[in-house]
Amino acid sequence: MEKIKVAVVGYGNIGKYVIEALQVAPDFEIAGIVRRNASQVPSEIAQYPVVGSLRELPGVQVAILCTPTRSVEQYATEALSMGIHTVDSFDIHTQTVSLRRTLDEVARRHNTVAIMSAGWDPGTDSMIRAILEACAPKGLTYTNFGPGMSMGHTVAVKAIEGVKAALSMTIPTGTGIHRRMVYIELQPGYDFQDVARRIKADDYFAHDETHVLQVESVDDLLDMGHGVHLTRKGVSGKTQNQLFEFNMRINNPALTAQIMVSSARAAMRQSPGCYTLIEIPIADLLYGDREDLVRRLV
Amino acid sequence: MEKIKVAVVGYGNIGKYVIEALQVAPDFEIAGIVRRNASQVPSEIAQYPVVGSLRELPGVQVAILCTPTRSVEQYATEALSMGIHTVDSFDIHTQTVSLRRTLDEVARRHNTVAIMSAGWDPGTDSMIRAILEACAPKGLTYTNFGPGMSMGHTVAVKAIEGVKAALSMTIPTGTGIHRRMVYIELQPGYDFQDVARRIKADDYFAHDETHVLQVESVDDLLDMGHGVHLTRKGVSGKTQNQLFEFNMRINNPALTAQIMVSSARAAMRQSPGCYTLIEIPIADLLYGDREDLVRRLV
Repeated sequence: MEKIKVAVVGYGNIGKYVIEALQVAPDFEIAGIVRRNASQVPSEIAQYPVVGSLRELPGVQVAILCTPTRSVEQYATEALSMGIHTVDSFDIHTQTVSLRRTLDEVARRHNTVAIMSAGWDPGTDSMIRAILEACAPKGLTYTNFGPGMSMGHTVAVKAIEGVKAALSMTIPTGTGIHRRMVYIELQPGYDFQDVARRIKADDYFAHDETHVLQVESVDDLLDMGHGVHLTRKGVSGKTQNQLFEFNMRINNPALTAQIMVSSARAAMRQSPGCYTLIEIPIADLLYGDREDLVRRLV
Repeated sequence: MEKIKVAVVGYGNIGKYVIEALQVAPDFEIAGIVRRNASQVPSEIAQYPVVGSLRELPGVQVAILCTPTRSVEQYATEALSMGIHTVDSFDIHTQTVSLRRTLDEVARRHNTVAIMSAGWDPGTDSMIRAILEACAPKGLTYTNFGPGMSMGHTVAVKAIEGVKAALSMTIPTGTGIHRRMVYIELQPGYDFQDVARRIKADDYFAHDETHVLQVESVDDLLDMGHGVHLTRKGVSGKTQNQLFEFNMRINNPALTAQIMVSSARAAMRQSPGCYTLIEIPIADLLYGDREDLVRRLV
């Protein structure tokens, strides 16, 4: 079997887990890892080429972009223009449509495929939301996150003056409403009440119930577990009170990485263009003979 | 907007709910209803043509087959050969691959689309199972059904001599194992213990924990609610203990009917061939502009 030659772009938290997922997948071959500082090669990836640019890796078919979300457009455009399919986990919900337009145009022009927002939310949660609307077109869906660490909110807290280290936990209180529990270490010379007030005034926190707590060590609290509780109550045809619920309790970067790897497989199977996960056949994400999948899963 | 002209083939339990779902869908027009005895026209469908054969309805684009599962191949083949797309809820898991081959060949030959096994199991449960394998390729999925009425088991009980009326309830006991609670009315002159023994010996019940109870009125117990509790515990990459759970509590025929109607929409959007629900993009099941769906659901 010809294996899919894949490059991993970015080697942070997600990138590490993507390498692990690729190592256990039967149909991928790691062509190499692209990082800004290519001279930094941690021992666990010493066996692979580590380079500063995708151009240095020959024969790459698909690039998994594990870069910050705001760099996705730049890296995806570059890879797609080189004839390489891309997978990203772009997660700014409000900018999804605009990025999809941009990447779709680039992908079609270069006869490549971009699969975007291929994490768990956006991503597999989006697929669940779409399935539940097919089951009950009228009604309300609530996506409740956590308890778990919010990357975006944690970064926002760290940017506030006087904060030495931070952790922002997302706590679901139902119907898509969340409490923010913010744990901080204070820089010397700052007043806790003053810093707490500025955190609560930040746009990331101003609209939610937010509690700020001072701790000795933020690092002692860090855990990459996360969760989702997604509900829909709706109407099938004219029949009310159809009840659906999806729950998960997962290691966050490990799940994101696995979904990106499954999506890299699917990228090989689509016509040129840009797709979100609700736009590709689910079976394309899976390894194995199509009839075997139908026999086992349908 | 040009509406999709749809025929409903069969007017039993599912057929009735399909009509309701079509009546509230914005993009369908009911071309008519096909039933064996076309002279029987219940008042709620008096406004539609009721005919004995699909050939009597002009301009039909897609036929929703609400016939017994064992007649699906015959009715689907006939419709596909007439250039009409089909949707069925074929539910004999062991024969899925074989029916898919047959209908795929017929559909391609006649430039039509067949969407098969488009209920909730097989159907949307299959989609959930496939998504969870994309999230955690290694691990175990258990699909637990009920509490709810099993149509297949109820029919099997009714076929046993001495049974006047029957209801077989499926009770989940976890890890995909089910208890069968069978409620029967006895025909005069039969011994309850003897009938119960023969029910338990039937191949439908011999492998499960089965309890048979005699009741005055089976009709008083009938409720079309059903449920699913689907779990997966698995491995994303090399990360263990990823936990997923899907639950629903639903009116069984109403949900089946809604999924078939959503699938009829998707049938209009596929290339010729036969598909199960894990093989079509989820967004194709939904009404509305593609970018609006991405904005709202992704």
